[in-house]
Amino acid sequence: MAQAFDQPLYRRVRDEIVGEILRGGAPAGTRLPSLRRLAQELGVSRITVEAAYEALEAQGLIETRARSGTFVAAHAAAEAAPHAARARGGLPWEARLAAAANPARERVLGQVLRGAEGGEGVSFAWGAGDPRLFPVDAFRAIIGRILRHARGAALGPEDTQGNAQLRASLAAYLRRLDVPASAEALAVTSGSQQAIDLVVTALVRPGERVAVEEPTWPGALGALEAAGAEIVGVPLDHEGMRLDVLERVLREGGLRLIYTVPTFHNPTGTVMPAGRRRELVRLAARHGVPVLEDDALREVRFGGVLPPPLAALDASGNVILVGSFTKSVLPAARLGYLLAPAKLRDWVVARKRSRDLYCSPLLQRAMSAYLESGDAVRHWKRISRVYAARQRVMDAALARHFPRGVRWRRAAGGPVCWVQLPEGVSARALFSQAVHAGVAFAPGEAFFVAPADQPFIRLNFAAIDEARIERGIATLGALVRAATGKEDRA
Amino acid sequence: MAQAFDQPLYRRVRDEIVGEILRGGAPAGTRLPSLRRLAQELGVSRITVEAAYEALEAQGLIETRARSGTFVAAHAAAEAAPHAARARGGLPWEARLAAAANPARERVLGQVLRGAEGGEGVSFAWGAGDPRLFPVDAFRAIIGRILRHARGAALGPEDTQGNAQLRASLAAYLRRLDVPASAEALAVTSGSQQAIDLVVTALVRPGERVAVEEPTWPGALGALEAAGAEIVGVPLDHEGMRLDVLERVLREGGLRLIYTVPTFHNPTGTVMPAGRRRELVRLAARHGVPVLEDDALREVRFGGVLPPPLAALDASGNVILVGSFTKSVLPAARLGYLLAPAKLRDWVVARKRSRDLYCSPLLQRAMSAYLESGDAVRHWKRISRVYAARQRVMDAALARHFPRGVRWRRAAGGPVCWVQLPEGVSARALFSQAVHAGVAFAPGEAFFVAPADQPFIRLNFAAIDEARIERGIATLGALVRAATGKEDRA
Repeated sequence: MAQAFDQPLYRRVRDEIVGEILRGGAPAGTRLPSLRRLAQELGVSRITVEAAYEALEAQGLIETRARSGTFVAAHAAAEAAPHAARARGGLPWEARLAAAANPARERVLGQVLRGAEGGEGVSFAWGAGDPRLFPVDAFRAIIGRILRHARGAALGPEDTQGNAQLRASLAAYLRRLDVPASAEALAVTSGSQQAIDLVVTALVRPGERVAVEEPTWPGALGALEAAGAEIVGVPLDHEGMRLDVLERVLREGGLRLIYTVPTFHNPTGTVMPAGRRRELVRLAARHGVPVLEDDALREVRFGGVLPPPLAALDASGNVILVGSFTKSVLPAARLGYLLAPAKLRDWVVARKRSRDLYCSPLLQRAMSAYLESGDAVRHWKRISRVYAARQRVMDAALARHFPRGVRWRRAAGGPVCWVQLPEGVSARALFSQAVHAGVAFAPGEAFFVAPADQPFIRLNFAAIDEARIERGIATLGALVRAATGKEDRA
Repeated sequence: MAQAFDQPLYRRVRDEIVGEILRGGAPAGTRLPSLRRLAQELGVSRITVEAAYEALEAQGLIETRARSGTFVAAHAAAEAAPHAARARGGLPWEARLAAAANPARERVLGQVLRGAEGGEGVSFAWGAGDPRLFPVDAFRAIIGRILRHARGAALGPEDTQGNAQLRASLAAYLRRLDVPASAEALAVTSGSQQAIDLVVTALVRPGERVAVEEPTWPGALGALEAAGAEIVGVPLDHEGMRLDVLERVLREGGLRLIYTVPTFHNPTGTVMPAGRRRELVRLAARHGVPVLEDDALREVRFGGVLPPPLAALDASGNVILVGSFTKSVLPAARLGYLLAPAKLRDWVVARKRSRDLYCSPLLQRAMSAYLESGDAVRHWKRISRVYAARQRVMDAALARHFPRGVRWRRAAGGPVCWVQLPEGVSARALFSQAVHAGVAFAPGEAFFVAPADQPFIRLNFAAIDEARIERGIATLGALVRAATGKEDRA
């Protein structure tokens, strides 16, 4: 309960009078006592009674007549009663609200966001990095500095396209990845999710086809479903999206967009090599279909040099790049970006304006300062080292505790491990049992187009201590073994 | 230019080699020098050359063959050249991007957000309060405290519905306004604009009719246009939306939503009295049409007690309440709220998830702490006092400098003054002249449904010093007098 918003005294006096009107003790036309008299009667100040009368008058329940006093208004009793609740059956317009397209996915996304609150249990469901490694002190210093120096100027409205300083920092960051970016060509969004959703809104009408890797990021599926897209899942191999399948889909015609996560694909961790990247860029351009490249995970990596983003291999503007610093810096910043040709960028900025006006200038300035300081590069090295160690622990634990027939690959980056369960094991059933045993994970079906049980689970290892990883995987492994009836690796 | 992202040395080496490949100096199959030799030749470390080779391999431009060395890959020259720019005429899919429905309004909204950057001039265009009065120190202290104590836990992902603590603070705030609110019934949004846009998305399909006060908040018009709504403008009198006109619109049928700003209506400042509020609530409920009440300006007020929100007069759930603390606390917080029946609230939360996942937990916690501290109530009193004084100055300046035939009303709250120009004076023409003379304002047409010149201008007095108000209004007044050809009040 908010102390600051406790009822002030005058409102209690007012409510007393309203109660009297409702009970019939003060019918219309009743003359109210003078301020002084009521104040004496109730043991409160005259000012309090005056405020109560003012409030009643603002509500239209009493009226002051010049030179004769204050009276209960006509119909005051009826007015004071709140508008009656409707008969059961709900509000007539509620029936028009369609249910979510995929309730299972909605549930999983909810868990992914809430995952860290697991308390005693072990949650591999979480979608972000380890909160204990977030650059809290750096941001505390930066925000403190901004508020001390820029003062209110850092806290007013902001241009919808985004803070110019942050866009310059983002352009410098992207140019380092060989992406020909300028501050002018960029727009700042509320995480990469908003960028994805706005691009989908711009380019896809209900019933139109969009190709995605399957499995893929549930947030993209949610945005496509909201747009009414017909989602075409393209399988992956160890080099990412299968272009032979994509080409077949492109030949069928009518494709409006290709959404891809070529770097540390979520949930499988796959990295598309440079050769296939070039092929994808050419294939899409040849068919005149734009590519939406999601590059939200690049900076958490355990191996060597990564191939450049698709956007670096394309000078035509046919590759639209979105990214964010949610995973690599701070979820709470809620900042992502969009790099797109001018016409699309302008469309997105205009639509963002009618959606939420602008992103917080305070957080934009803070992110810009953080990126410029060089702290970000050091931070990425540090978390990559810690997460790589945790990945090794998870890898060993999976090998130790899971039965034969379970498959997974050690990804070269990203915070998750994608595990294929043995034939006949239901991820849905496993999820219920695991939650009961204090272990959570993201069931595979959230990452597929159609809502159906899938023999996959996604495990986040980044946010969990090594001992807890071992414990959680042991618990899961026992459940999987029990489900397969095999105890071959006890 | 971002120092942190200057090109590291190995990338310069890499770019040298790429240049050589492009120039034809190293055709496919060329054997590259050993690490040691190239390092000596270039005067860099072996590690630098190794990193350059790794980068080239990640790009697929060179390949290492076991026991025989490193070679330029087949087709490397073609691969190294960025994908060719398309012939002029643009990308094929760009043609599908519709232009903004109302470019004049987009322009004005852009100015409203950027207005304070006017430099030497006087900008009455600004849509927010005075940045010099923002509670910067309070937020600096609160954010510092949160980061010191909650650390990373305050910076992770957040539930899409909103931080539970903030929702509890909002519920307490609303109960103080007699609105029956609970933390559970509330959703946190990115400003009230996002709440408006999500409700419109939920309830309005293309071609369906929505009633709004005309003029009204351009952001609401933008959201309605994005949804493809047929917008029906209902005129206001001195008590707000005219219910006789609204009733006629309701009788015609097919109305899906009524959007209203009953308290300090933007742009006119009108306050709808309690009696008409009750009538509106009943009328809408009788026709089964939901009311979207926008209560974003309540806390900046110059008069006595305000009538309660419509949502306090309705127990049926037919009134959907949205609000924000953008105007009364801090634009940079980007926080608003939605109070709606369970089914609509759930729909909005699910759609927000696919749009931008969640609002910054750091800013949510900070806003909650600020509201709970009691600082907010003191702040509202302070800014109301300052803005009231500036309103009096603007009022006097308008009377002094504007010719007869100009009309305006002193509103009981809010940061703006809505001025009707004399017959024959074009707000568009006045705007160009005024900007030339160093004075900006929001032209009236942004607040109307159809894009057409309107004889109105909106002047924000809240953010401007009294001397500058006087100076700016004098400049404007001279231009208006010149346009009317009257010099009757020189």
